[in-house]
Amino acid sequence: MPAESHRLAATELLKAFNDNQLTIEDYAKSLLKRIEERDGVVKAWAYLKPEQVLEQARALDKVPKDQRGPLHGIGVAIKDVIYTRGMPTQLGSPIFENDQPEVDAASVKMLRYAGALILGKTTTTEFAASTVGTKTTNPHEPGRTPGGSSSGSGAAVADFQATLALGTQTGGSIIRPASFNGTFGMKPTWNSVSREGQKIYSLDLDTLGWYGRSVEDLKLCADVFGLEDDEVPRSVSDVRGLKVAFLKTMVWDRAGPGTQKAFNTGRQMLEEAEAQIEDTSFPDEFDKLPDWHTCLNYSEGSVYFRPEYQYAKGKLGDFLVGIAERKHGYTRKDFLEASDGIAALRPKWDAIAENYDVVVVPSVPDEAPEGLSSTGNAIFNALWTALHVPVINIPAFTGEHGMPIGLTLTTARYQDQALLEVAKAVSRVWIKE
Amino acid sequence: MPAESHRLAATELLKAFNDNQLTIEDYAKSLLKRIEERDGVVKAWAYLKPEQVLEQARALDKVPKDQRGPLHGIGVAIKDVIYTRGMPTQLGSPIFENDQPEVDAASVKMLRYAGALILGKTTTTEFAASTVGTKTTNPHEPGRTPGGSSSGSGAAVADFQATLALGTQTGGSIIRPASFNGTFGMKPTWNSVSREGQKIYSLDLDTLGWYGRSVEDLKLCADVFGLEDDEVPRSVSDVRGLKVAFLKTMVWDRAGPGTQKAFNTGRQMLEEAEAQIEDTSFPDEFDKLPDWHTCLNYSEGSVYFRPEYQYAKGKLGDFLVGIAERKHGYTRKDFLEASDGIAALRPKWDAIAENYDVVVVPSVPDEAPEGLSSTGNAIFNALWTALHVPVINIPAFTGEHGMPIGLTLTTARYQDQALLEVAKAVSRVWIKE
Repeated sequence: MPAESHRLAATELLKAFNDNQLTIEDYAKSLLKRIEERDGVVKAWAYLKPEQVLEQARALDKVPKDQRGPLHGIGVAIKDVIYTRGMPTQLGSPIFENDQPEVDAASVKMLRYAGALILGKTTTTEFAASTVGTKTTNPHEPGRTPGGSSSGSGAAVADFQATLALGTQTGGSIIRPASFNGTFGMKPTWNSVSREGQKIYSLDLDTLGWYGRSVEDLKLCADVFGLEDDEVPRSVSDVRGLKVAFLKTMVWDRAGPGTQKAFNTGRQMLEEAEAQIEDTSFPDEFDKLPDWHTCLNYSEGSVYFRPEYQYAKGKLGDFLVGIAERKHGYTRKDFLEASDGIAALRPKWDAIAENYDVVVVPSVPDEAPEGLSSTGNAIFNALWTALHVPVINIPAFTGEHGMPIGLTLTTARYQDQALLEVAKAVSRVWIKE
Repeated sequence: MPAESHRLAATELLKAFNDNQLTIEDYAKSLLKRIEERDGVVKAWAYLKPEQVLEQARALDKVPKDQRGPLHGIGVAIKDVIYTRGMPTQLGSPIFENDQPEVDAASVKMLRYAGALILGKTTTTEFAASTVGTKTTNPHEPGRTPGGSSSGSGAAVADFQATLALGTQTGGSIIRPASFNGTFGMKPTWNSVSREGQKIYSLDLDTLGWYGRSVEDLKLCADVFGLEDDEVPRSVSDVRGLKVAFLKTMVWDRAGPGTQKAFNTGRQMLEEAEAQIEDTSFPDEFDKLPDWHTCLNYSEGSVYFRPEYQYAKGKLGDFLVGIAERKHGYTRKDFLEASDGIAALRPKWDAIAENYDVVVVPSVPDEAPEGLSSTGNAIFNALWTALHVPVINIPAFTGEHGMPIGLTLTTARYQDQALLEVAKAVSRVWIKE
């Protein structure tokens, strides 16, 4: 087992560590070997020092079992917009080359407290804001994008170079890479997990999230970060009788053949497993949601990139220069209309979602596009980021070129644990072991 | 002039520097002398190194005049929840004693870009969240609180130990100290200025703001931080004909004799100056606003203090332990009701405010209370923090014991520059030179 331990899920690793079948050091070595073999192609890391990983692993091995946290020894990659003591945070920007603020983001503090092994920093598009590709490639085909902005986190987990990874999402920066690379990914309810110690792009939208090998792994992270619903969700043994809505959204015309097929296949599989399927759609008043998301995102970007624009304009990409210069043309009045408009839609969406156990929606237009210059389109994700609801990507399907395609499960705000329970059962139907 | 230059407003200092009447070094020495004389009583600083101040001042003196920014040489105190390179950020908490993340908050970056002289770090209550007093005393009477949580910033500006200062407000943490110490203070529209690089208490409420010696000084900061209304506001030469609303709020029963008198006096003075005065009140649907603010504030605190609670519970004050343990009892459902409820009120308030040039409301229940154990009550401020609107404290009045009392001017969201224009005129009526 040790030689291939980099392929295990976090839940499997925890058991192996606990049963003395595997040391954290051997597991770390297995990850590092995989990284050494694959980094030349995948290029998922903005920073990684093998000796720093091994030192942590050895220290973690020494901790008595009764003093271990819920992620003890599990290797986590940190998206490089999240501050980490002892490692640089370079934000995908030449402005911050080799910069190392000696402070841990709140998420990293909670990971360390849970005993996680902090592996290193994974690539991000410029400030997690741009869709210009990073050096990272899609592990399934190096000529295709891994998506973004959490490019390195999505690719590292998919390529078995990290067991878990942190990402952030303002548009589609967690779910898109999850779908393109074929990993499980979760964006929880906005504001339910601290994102203190991160670069800000949009205060109203930025959300911390994570990648893992299974829904069970996603739940491990959710618990570490303190996600709780008001009521402990009922456990879901299988999908029989579950009320599942399929929602194509107002941007369904952007869905290519891969996503269309995944949507139909996913629906059929759940039907066969005797879930109660229903088609649903957004009421008309949700029509402006995509435009309002863009307005919010760009308008807030103009606030949050002002400092870098002032002192380092020459090192900012064109997109961010445009944002800082308000080339988008949105006024404060537009911004308030979008902001208040979305705020009014959120409880309306919750009321719709509460009619179902889960709502299935597209994760992406299609497979990861060819080329590394763009990280692809976030149009299907932005809706849910704006509505602040939890979303989970299930990497169950493939497209015309054999590349991964996921579908997204969503629900109402603060139903994160309930969504995880349902996602476990749906995942078992969609992904036959 | 140099000997007393610590008493000048920023606008006066800029003129003196530009006219070669004063060097930045001499001004810095004047501030440092004042601090030396007064720090034993006022204790406004969490960190200040005279040599570091003088070094910056000498370097700033050498910058050619055509390369100077809009705050060149002006001494600014930074509330100690805001990260600063080269200075510790201790957050008013023993957990972070001598901690020094080497990163500048966005606000500090913008100040440095504008040429400001960063003086040091001013005291804050624990994480800018607690109302337990700091070591800082009220400059007007050392047995009274300077308010909080921006205790040091308010006291330092009032006591002529800093010309400008940054603060933050989640409840009443800028305006309350402004009123208690007798300084001008501004909290701009929420989300209009980056607060990247700060401890988070409540994402929905935390707002960066500032203190100064005049409305003109507040405007200098507003410009540096990029505050713009959609339309350039008309300049207001005097209050004649201005539509001024007086709003007692639903918590007026908390106003003591000092605030009651200030309210009446302020009204009368504006009437005599031929402003059009009108009394107004909140519609009934605003009744829950104070409770909703508390729910938002405490619920978000439970998220944002989770890391510190996990690894350093023993060093957290009782209030924050209670917050982390959700002793407040608010559910996620309560939180969403409060959050969505306030979101729906914001445009309604804007529509009310747009009927007037300005709305006058209380800043505080009364004078700064005796004793240093509590920083006083934020009940009048929390309403406006929750509504996300800009507020300016005008320190025009005094209470029964001769202590300062201010009144707050407010308006609709993103009318910050318009509010500053009106505030200049109102200030001239209320504060006779």
